[in-house]
Amino acid sequence: MAYPQTCFRHTAFHGPSLLQTRRATVAQVTLQTQLDMLKRTGRFDCFKLQWRPIYGEKDQWPVPKHLFWDSDCAKWIEAACYCLADAYDADVDAAVQELVAMIRSAQGSDGYLNIHYTVVEPGKRWTNLRDMHELYNAGHLIEAALAHRNYYKNDLLLEPIEKYVSLIYDTFGPDEGKRHGYPGHPEIELALLRLHAATGNPKAYALASYFVRERGNPTGQDGRHYYDAEADARGDSMWLRPDPYPTARAYWYCQAHEPVLEQQTIEGHSVRAVYLLTAVADMAVLDRQGVQKTAQADAWRAAAERLWNNMVDRKMYLTGGIGARPEWEGFGRDYQLPQSTDEGGCYAETCASIGAIMLAERLLHLDLDGRYADVLELSLYNVVMTAMDVAGKAFTYDNQLASSDANTSRREEWFECSCCPPNVSRLYGSLGGYLWDYGGGSSSSSSGDKGRGDAFVNVHLYTTAKLSFDVDGQPVVLEQTSDWPLDGKVSFRVDNSSDKKLTLRLRIPSWSSGQYALHPELPGASVEKGYLVLPPSYVETNTAFTLEILNFKPRFLAPHPYTNQRTLTLARGPIVYCVEDVDNEWERNHFKDVVVDAASGAGVQEEERVFAATGERYVALRTTAWSCPLDKWDAKQPGGLPGLPADGEAEKDKETGKEALGTERSLVFIPYYFRANRGGRGHMRVGLKAV
Amino acid sequence: MAYPQTCFRHTAFHGPSLLQTRRATVAQVTLQTQLDMLKRTGRFDCFKLQWRPIYGEKDQWPVPKHLFWDSDCAKWIEAACYCLADAYDADVDAAVQELVAMIRSAQGSDGYLNIHYTVVEPGKRWTNLRDMHELYNAGHLIEAALAHRNYYKNDLLLEPIEKYVSLIYDTFGPDEGKRHGYPGHPEIELALLRLHAATGNPKAYALASYFVRERGNPTGQDGRHYYDAEADARGDSMWLRPDPYPTARAYWYCQAHEPVLEQQTIEGHSVRAVYLLTAVADMAVLDRQGVQKTAQADAWRAAAERLWNNMVDRKMYLTGGIGARPEWEGFGRDYQLPQSTDEGGCYAETCASIGAIMLAERLLHLDLDGRYADVLELSLYNVVMTAMDVAGKAFTYDNQLASSDANTSRREEWFECSCCPPNVSRLYGSLGGYLWDYGGGSSSSSSGDKGRGDAFVNVHLYTTAKLSFDVDGQPVVLEQTSDWPLDGKVSFRVDNSSDKKLTLRLRIPSWSSGQYALHPELPGASVEKGYLVLPPSYVETNTAFTLEILNFKPRFLAPHPYTNQRTLTLARGPIVYCVEDVDNEWERNHFKDVVVDAASGAGVQEEERVFAATGERYVALRTTAWSCPLDKWDAKQPGGLPGLPADGEAEKDKETGKEALGTERSLVFIPYYFRANRGGRGHMRVGLKAV
Repeated sequence: MAYPQTCFRHTAFHGPSLLQTRRATVAQVTLQTQLDMLKRTGRFDCFKLQWRPIYGEKDQWPVPKHLFWDSDCAKWIEAACYCLADAYDADVDAAVQELVAMIRSAQGSDGYLNIHYTVVEPGKRWTNLRDMHELYNAGHLIEAALAHRNYYKNDLLLEPIEKYVSLIYDTFGPDEGKRHGYPGHPEIELALLRLHAATGNPKAYALASYFVRERGNPTGQDGRHYYDAEADARGDSMWLRPDPYPTARAYWYCQAHEPVLEQQTIEGHSVRAVYLLTAVADMAVLDRQGVQKTAQADAWRAAAERLWNNMVDRKMYLTGGIGARPEWEGFGRDYQLPQSTDEGGCYAETCASIGAIMLAERLLHLDLDGRYADVLELSLYNVVMTAMDVAGKAFTYDNQLASSDANTSRREEWFECSCCPPNVSRLYGSLGGYLWDYGGGSSSSSSGDKGRGDAFVNVHLYTTAKLSFDVDGQPVVLEQTSDWPLDGKVSFRVDNSSDKKLTLRLRIPSWSSGQYALHPELPGASVEKGYLVLPPSYVETNTAFTLEILNFKPRFLAPHPYTNQRTLTLARGPIVYCVEDVDNEWERNHFKDVVVDAASGAGVQEEERVFAATGERYVALRTTAWSCPLDKWDAKQPGGLPGLPADGEAEKDKETGKEALGTERSLVFIPYYFRANRGGRGHMRVGLKAV
Repeated sequence: MAYPQTCFRHTAFHGPSLLQTRRATVAQVTLQTQLDMLKRTGRFDCFKLQWRPIYGEKDQWPVPKHLFWDSDCAKWIEAACYCLADAYDADVDAAVQELVAMIRSAQGSDGYLNIHYTVVEPGKRWTNLRDMHELYNAGHLIEAALAHRNYYKNDLLLEPIEKYVSLIYDTFGPDEGKRHGYPGHPEIELALLRLHAATGNPKAYALASYFVRERGNPTGQDGRHYYDAEADARGDSMWLRPDPYPTARAYWYCQAHEPVLEQQTIEGHSVRAVYLLTAVADMAVLDRQGVQKTAQADAWRAAAERLWNNMVDRKMYLTGGIGARPEWEGFGRDYQLPQSTDEGGCYAETCASIGAIMLAERLLHLDLDGRYADVLELSLYNVVMTAMDVAGKAFTYDNQLASSDANTSRREEWFECSCCPPNVSRLYGSLGGYLWDYGGGSSSSSSGDKGRGDAFVNVHLYTTAKLSFDVDGQPVVLEQTSDWPLDGKVSFRVDNSSDKKLTLRLRIPSWSSGQYALHPELPGASVEKGYLVLPPSYVETNTAFTLEILNFKPRFLAPHPYTNQRTLTLARGPIVYCVEDVDNEWERNHFKDVVVDAASGAGVQEEERVFAATGERYVALRTTAWSCPLDKWDAKQPGGLPGLPADGEAEKDKETGKEALGTERSLVFIPYYFRANRGGRGHMRVGLKAV
């Protein structure tokens, strides 16, 4: 049940890797850039509680632009504390301390701590949980405080935050006289559970549990849905609603349309959904492990798994991106996965994939199954990584699978609602915690080695990194060295100085079709739910061994037929590829009219490249494709009958007799994570039309 | 410029045809059924201005259920008057007269005539033009009054309606002190233009012109958009909005986001859009013909054509249906044309296609181009006709191209908002007016025979019907006899007893690829914009001749590639086909997994059938198809990586070496207009997956 945000410090990225390149960029460039942005936009000083003109702008009802500023600062503090642990930076250190001092001074005497309701609308706190992000901001403050305490080893931030938590506890809950509400944007739930784990604070657990259980209660507040009751209390008509609500009372937008345990499909705003489910999964972990052992643990787990399955099977892009509908930054119908704005959508928000990674990590504690780690890795390399440029200075909010004239492929320095950039920073800062989970000894909470206290490491991600942890005070070290994701070979060294047996489980990604090679060999080795089990006997004998994930050759992927996306996407190892105009300069129409043929026999050639500006290596791919101009359609009389006859008498190539596919092209693909780093006109596509 | 609603009386459906079968059903069954429904639901008596409990229901803000009742009655009156002209029915006659008496008695002393604002919210008239359908209802009353006068030859209905028009004229307009508003739901514009044509009422023209020109003015009312100003006057926040408005101020929903002349794409609620454009096209006709000759005639025409082209090229289904988005009963993005609810939409409202037919008819007066008539015919047979069952008692509101579990293929007796059923009735009632346009003599307004006063008939639709009209008091008769749409042969007889030369223009549908046969032949015959021109010399010599539209063989149609609908649809002549489970009983999944192959060489067999219940004949089609179960996808681990490898190594059939397509099926197609008449489980599809 250890959290990656805590245990990441047991992992050192001790050698070069793609992940370490990004981590170093975040620590050395991004944190400072984002600090500068916090200062330039007024966010840094916001806890001084001075009025700013932007506070008075009314054009974004009901959510004013500054409403997330508390969380922007909190997420930066959290990221900074993670990165400081790895690479000290005096400026960052000073800024964190200054922010913490300001946050402390901004707290009300009763513990309340929120900029908007202190400066802009004093006296109106807790009047609009649905929209106003008070509890969301509080959640990020809690996470910041935990990161702060872990790094600084003091309670300068945690102390005021726990006071705030006490106030929230006194305000919300099942007791008569308390408000029976819960946040419109989940986040505090997962933060409270971590607070409880870190400090044992019973109010934190009780509050998180209440928020998750009460959510979607149709009769929770005076016999009514809480959001109806609070709207009434404000004097608001139910027809008065923010833009992301497509209809009145569309509470599925924030997963409050029915109790979580009853939800059959994952709906609404994607970030909210995965943050909520991360807490649900953690409730299952905690309840199972005895914090409050109840039959509900199974129910929480069933809900988390059911909604995970719906998400991954029917609402996830091949990149791992989630959220087809920009209108509500969230999920569409089953199989509704358009690639781009001109196809009617695609959002795939960066924060949503970060949430999916957090959710997958929790689910791995419930059920060590490679399917969760597969998606974790997919989302990391193909959404989170594509959301930041190589320089560490520009970001994406949404990560569409194809560009269009309205949305070319590019990144921005900052956003008005800037949740994603600092979220990327905090994920990279704590990334070590996601590589593996481990345990053993008397404190082991076990995710498989029940009772005996034996040590274990479950390796989810491959890179170059070193894990060091204690088992009853005795050190265990596991080191992996790899050129992943460029190559599938991973060398391990293990040093178990404890008196416990050590079992290793190494993930065999599903895309490898279970093909791997282990040196030295392990006769009769078993792969259990996507993890190769190396028993203590093997680990004792082989303190150095090599795992090679095979099947790293490029492969074409197809989305489910019900998506109406008859496309092919190239992938190699965990990396999903795209095409960009910078490599394919002839392209003028976002690769909409380019077709590829998986069965053409043309093959896919690999080409290792070095990005001159930074020395970063990547593998480009090349295959044959055809650009098919829409001549027949363009020649159609405007305003005539819709459609054209498809008489099956397609034009044939004179020489081959095959159907003419258009102009043959040698099409170059690059990793989707690498897009928009080399100029160009912003034409890009992941899924190309299949022949 | 004659209107079909007026000149239909010059056409007699003198023999059997599919159109006449439906027309007779409407006159003999549907009118009575709908009258009964008007009575049972309280609509018939609504002009008695008594309170009804339904008036107090608040669940459909801001549009209460009874808000359209005025128009429901008006449309029924209009339909009744058209049908009475053809087939007298004493009960219908009596009901019309009773309704008219009630309407007369319901009028306020100042001319105001609206149920809701008289009974439910007196004193609040004209406070919410955007939503409350006051002017829409007035428009339908005008149309009813015109139909009533034409049939009854008295002004019992027209007199109060013209009084109401005067009140509206005094209320709205450019003058200071008048409201600078326009209806949220266009309809009155096209009605006012017809009123002006019928009576010369100058206020009617001025008002229509004002409504069309003022629409979308961003600063029309006190420097603001009218709908903003009126919302303010009501004290409503801009964030208080009805469900069909996806965001605040989404005035594109009702085509008021910018002035009509500036609109580049057709947007929003489809019925509103095509009703509005019918008026715009008619403005171009009228202005061109001298009512108010201005340079604007060309601008109106350009706008109407531009939006027509956008609609037909990018936002129209192969059936002629328009409106992809149920959320606002309207247009989606360019090429967004999902077939069914489970694909994310499809609305294709019956009324919208009736509006498209009215629009096409107007455009044919501006520009005799077969592309308009092609769509007119498409919409008639494949949307309007599918919207009523063979018995004439059940209707559809939306006409999806495929069923789903949520929306099986079926019809309903009536709807809460029941615009469609009486709209179907009034279209069939006046259908003769859409078959052809004609003119000549001194009163000729000419759509091609400029100045000389020669007679002409432009034949848009083929069926069995006889047109009789006068040219300067001398009779011209044109008779066509045909089994259309089952067969492409049309026999004509012409009797020109006038002293004018008579030119005939016969539409050669674009789907025939211009293939036709004329007997006797006309050497050097020319086809101009989709119309075969028979000059006076030919017509004089050949008083009987036969046109055969060739290429009636079944053909596969494909939608534009950008729709992401890689489907094939069977069509034959003007008829689009579908598959139903009643003919293909093995189907269990709405034909989602059935593929067809236009190039398979399997061919399509025709099979003439007779529907035993009514004796109606239709042509069924049969071809080979394959059902492809989703075995690979179903076998996938739930919650694992999205997508599957598409390695090009598809399973091959052992014997043929071809890619295995699944279970071979003999697939039976029937006309889409005939669906849901023979029981079954409501599984239906128009566009089948292409191999």
